[in-house]
Amino acid sequence: MQARELKICEILTVGTELLLGEILNTNARFLCKELAAMGIGVQRVLTVGDNPARLREDFLQALGRSDIVLCSGGLGPTPDDLTKEVVCEALGLPLAEDAAQRQAIKAFFARHGAPCSNNNFKQALVPQGCTVLYNENGTAPGCCLRTDEGKIVALLPGPPRELQPMFIGALRPLLRGKSSGAIVSHHLRTYGIGESRLAALAAPWLACQNPTVAPYAKDGEAYLRITAAAPTNEAAEALCAPVLAELQNLLKAFVYSVDKNLSASVLHLLKSQAKTISFAESCTGGAVAKSLTDLPGASEVFGYGFVCYANEAKQRLLGVAPTTLATHGAVSAECAEAMAHGARAQSGADLAVSVTGVAGPSAQGTNKPAGLVYLAATNGNQTLHRQLNTGRDDRDYNRTVATKAALHLAWQLLTIS
Amino acid sequence: MQARELKICEILTVGTELLLGEILNTNARFLCKELAAMGIGVQRVLTVGDNPARLREDFLQALGRSDIVLCSGGLGPTPDDLTKEVVCEALGLPLAEDAAQRQAIKAFFARHGAPCSNNNFKQALVPQGCTVLYNENGTAPGCCLRTDEGKIVALLPGPPRELQPMFIGALRPLLRGKSSGAIVSHHLRTYGIGESRLAALAAPWLACQNPTVAPYAKDGEAYLRITAAAPTNEAAEALCAPVLAELQNLLKAFVYSVDKNLSASVLHLLKSQAKTISFAESCTGGAVAKSLTDLPGASEVFGYGFVCYANEAKQRLLGVAPTTLATHGAVSAECAEAMAHGARAQSGADLAVSVTGVAGPSAQGTNKPAGLVYLAATNGNQTLHRQLNTGRDDRDYNRTVATKAALHLAWQLLTIS
Repeated sequence: MQARELKICEILTVGTELLLGEILNTNARFLCKELAAMGIGVQRVLTVGDNPARLREDFLQALGRSDIVLCSGGLGPTPDDLTKEVVCEALGLPLAEDAAQRQAIKAFFARHGAPCSNNNFKQALVPQGCTVLYNENGTAPGCCLRTDEGKIVALLPGPPRELQPMFIGALRPLLRGKSSGAIVSHHLRTYGIGESRLAALAAPWLACQNPTVAPYAKDGEAYLRITAAAPTNEAAEALCAPVLAELQNLLKAFVYSVDKNLSASVLHLLKSQAKTISFAESCTGGAVAKSLTDLPGASEVFGYGFVCYANEAKQRLLGVAPTTLATHGAVSAECAEAMAHGARAQSGADLAVSVTGVAGPSAQGTNKPAGLVYLAATNGNQTLHRQLNTGRDDRDYNRTVATKAALHLAWQLLTIS
Repeated sequence: MQARELKICEILTVGTELLLGEILNTNARFLCKELAAMGIGVQRVLTVGDNPARLREDFLQALGRSDIVLCSGGLGPTPDDLTKEVVCEALGLPLAEDAAQRQAIKAFFARHGAPCSNNNFKQALVPQGCTVLYNENGTAPGCCLRTDEGKIVALLPGPPRELQPMFIGALRPLLRGKSSGAIVSHHLRTYGIGESRLAALAAPWLACQNPTVAPYAKDGEAYLRITAAAPTNEAAEALCAPVLAELQNLLKAFVYSVDKNLSASVLHLLKSQAKTISFAESCTGGAVAKSLTDLPGASEVFGYGFVCYANEAKQRLLGVAPTTLATHGAVSAECAEAMAHGARAQSGADLAVSVTGVAGPSAQGTNKPAGLVYLAATNGNQTLHRQLNTGRDDRDYNRTVATKAALHLAWQLLTIS
């Protein structure tokens, strides 16, 4: 990427629970995504525990090599909440009580009908001269301050439900104008090609500087990320556009969308074709229906899902013939086809997709291997089949990959017909 | 916690996609959790991008102040995969081709019937003198090496499906004995109580030193973590046991399990009572069935699930009376009860649980607010009801909370009957 005046940011997430692996660091992801969208480049994310000495050392190092340091966590009322104290000490700033925040804490407890213990007022102390970021969803305020060197330090609370609205509502407006550019990313999403082959085909583009092109893989899907930096959003988009078009053409046998994931792509096609869909699921156990209904608006295209885990359910709900099950077994192309036709007939949907397979970890009650999955998709006129054989004894993986295959088969049926 | 000779570890997670906020850092959480369980203390987790200069600087700093450095990511076949090269250069170690790994890469592509492009063989290069950690689930091997100062450096691949089995199967055995103690954590899982009330009730225990007791909350559930450190696993367990028992007694109105999550608790009860269950889902759209079938062994207790997103599906699949829908609406206690009875009758299961509500974001086609959810659970003799009103217009949150409520209602029916 060209040298440009994008401001450099480091993020410090503070909390022993993170270092013990108790929780996922969703704050890091949220802040990185938001900052990237603003054109502020995050160079490092560091997680440290509730240890004042290490926190001080790491904070000063981060401040020394960047323009913006965001800290999350450690602002609460308990004795192990130390971020504010450590940062103020490191910067040589005194703490001062904010009268409005003291009132806000009192009001918060009154509103929740809970007694307010004295330690809560520790949270009314803020670094002298800072901009207080009031907390609509808790009692610990955040703050934003400018150091003598003109660098920006912001402290945010740890709970994501407090941090996110505070960032969006209070801190983001303060950070705007701290970047002299925009970063835009697009994702060319493919199915049916591995990461290394994708990278080999796209090799000439992987050396591009602006936009950069990078391959990624995730559970049976691979994608290319195209990222451009420019003074404005429009200019960054303009840099992405030709590369995106070239790659889209090169990989057209595999690309199913730009940016939209599989379930969003299927939902979009169904809506635009005014069609409805139904699912008949065995080994995915509801995961395909869940994927589609994760999205608002799914009710326009989806009315019925059949989770037929037992053979009896496949017969009774979907009308799969006992002879099909006896001759071919539940994990077979024949059963998948019968399930798809049954789901379509029972639901009256335009399309139906079925999945039946062995999720694993062990292939109980079948002589078929874990990771063997049959799928079918039908619109009445055309029926598509797919078989997976992951060769893996990993239940989560097999279910995830089978769910994506079901959605991709729906995508295929919607794009050929 | 007492000072003890736990070895100090730092983790470096490498990948620009992490700094852009495209993915959650699940590897950091996994490794932290595993290392804590082995008594190895993680002091810092650092995320850096695919930038060789910063990676080198951060790797050397981490190595300077800790005994073990684990790196994840950047081992793949593409040009931006640089971790191995940077670490070897920093340590002054040459790369050498591992013949077995070369064969493994060929075999991997043959097994998947995919062409193997030449860039893949970059992955057969490993640091001279290292222990190769072969990758059962991909083509990039990991490695573990000891520096001249006796420190341990391990490189692991980025994809969680490759990293996790490699850590468990290959690296963990090598790290055993690197710690002189054990850390044990248990989770007292509760339902129906908020984090602050939980913390208030457990206040006297929150000051404990060994074990430590800390409250957490996540999407409609709260739990206490009890963590002890001791020279052996058994000694750490013995420190936890009395505190766990006291808290379990104190909070018995809310505790549903120690350690097991809701779906595992329900599966365990169903198996031990030799009962079967069925689900009738509207707003959760398959998420309840998915939660249970995420677990191996679900087929012993679960055969049928009904995803009845449309009103017509509630009538046709579950026999909900048109008058019930016309009088009370689909989002009503009456409809929930009829759905549960219908699912039980249609499936022949011992129990059935139903969920119907408004997921949001906007309450389309209904005058009921987003976050209003009705649930019912029946075993034929007894029927339990529950109503949620989250007051939030957040689809993900409402669906997650409704899924947990459905599982908890099943838990309740299984423990009272």
